Amino acid sequence: MTTAGAPRRRRGRPAAGEADGGPSARERILTAARTEFAARGYDKASIRGIARRADVDPALVHHYFGPKEQVFASSLRDAVQPALDIPDVLSAGAPEEAGERLTRHLFGVWENTFTREPLLAVIRSAVNNETAASIFRATVVRQLLKRVAPQLTGTDAELRAELAVAQLVGTAMLRYIIKVEPLASADPEDLIRRLAPVVQQHLADG
Amino acid sequence: MTTAGAPRRRRGRPAAGEADGGPSARERILTAARTEFAARGYDKASIRGIARRADVDPALVHHYFGPKEQVFASSLRDAVQPALDIPDVLSAGAPEEAGERLTRHLFGVWENTFTREPLLAVIRSAVNNETAASIFRATVVRQLLKRVAPQLTGTDAELRAELAVAQLVGTAMLRYIIKVEPLASADPEDLIRRLAPVVQQHLADG
Repeated sequence: MTTAGAPRRRRGRPAAGEADGGPSARERILTAARTEFAARGYDKASIRGIARRADVDPALVHHYFGPKEQVFASSLRDAVQPALDIPDVLSAGAPEEAGERLTRHLFGVWENTFTREPLLAVIRSAVNNETAASIFRATVVRQLLKRVAPQLTGTDAELRAELAVAQLVGTAMLRYIIKVEPLASADPEDLIRRLAPVVQQHLADG
Repeated sequence: MTTAGAPRRRRGRPAAGEADGGPSARERILTAARTEFAARGYDKASIRGIARRADVDPALVHHYFGPKEQVFASSLRDAVQPALDIPDVLSAGAPEEAGERLTRHLFGVWENTFTREPLLAVIRSAVNNETAASIFRATVVRQLLKRVAPQLTGTDAELRAELAVAQLVGTAMLRYIIKVEPLASADPEDLIRRLAPVVQQHLADG
């Protein structure tokens, strides 16, 4: 995602897994960070705990990502990359089909365990901790709204974009986290068919 | 809410607060339970911790409510009573205005701190723990759907009711938990005006 955090030289013991083509130490640290923040909560999560989960030296975590707040922001940035793609998805075709493109895009992310789990971990952290929520707002939400709102015509574009996202995020929460039936087992195409017009209504309604 | 948990005789030291008209020991235990489950997570929460927060003997918690799972279910039942009122709200007028009644009812609950906070505590627990989520499904969701679905005409009534609730729950999450602006500061009447037609569309659309 970014190369800004790449270290000039490494400290501590060499990271395991890279020589045999496994995930890089950086990737392992980000995955470990999401697990640590989701499992222990933002306040109790520690650089040391993240390092242990990633099987690296704590100094390496700090060297790549800085203090805890920045480790969280980085772990979040990778997890929410699909959300950050939303502006491009919206602008990639006719405005009257933006609702369906957005709905289809997010179900594409959520129906895939590899992209869903990091996102759910971030949501769990933000739901549970005010500091995590505030980092989430400052990084993801601001970035997104700044790019989405100008694409929408009419008044209250930011609010309408949020209500569209609320429909999809609420559906994700009931389907993947609380696992409410029959929603949890519903066919994704059926859900897209039902939700796209509603999302479109929010996006289009000035 | 229920009198089934009322003890025949009390054990442990007498509960504080009742003599001077404060909340009953039962109410204090339920409030303490929601705080304990939200703060520590379902797995780490304990009867002892709940008793400490409520300033009662642990034996009294067990005597009123039984083991941890049942303490959670009881603390949840009180917190979600406004949600359990939904079937009555839906049937209390013309079907074509059910979407507005539901939206207005839930905003009435959420805009009041005293009814919002217990509900948010329950949601935090369910988002964070599979056991808590499963108790939530078995008690709240089942009860609700059983009474709501028969009121809706057309196919897939349960699924449609869940998508309506998803719009409102997603909005609540972004507004009250993540506190995303401008949604967090938007006028409730403006939100009801925007959301009621969408909720109605889900409820009515066969």
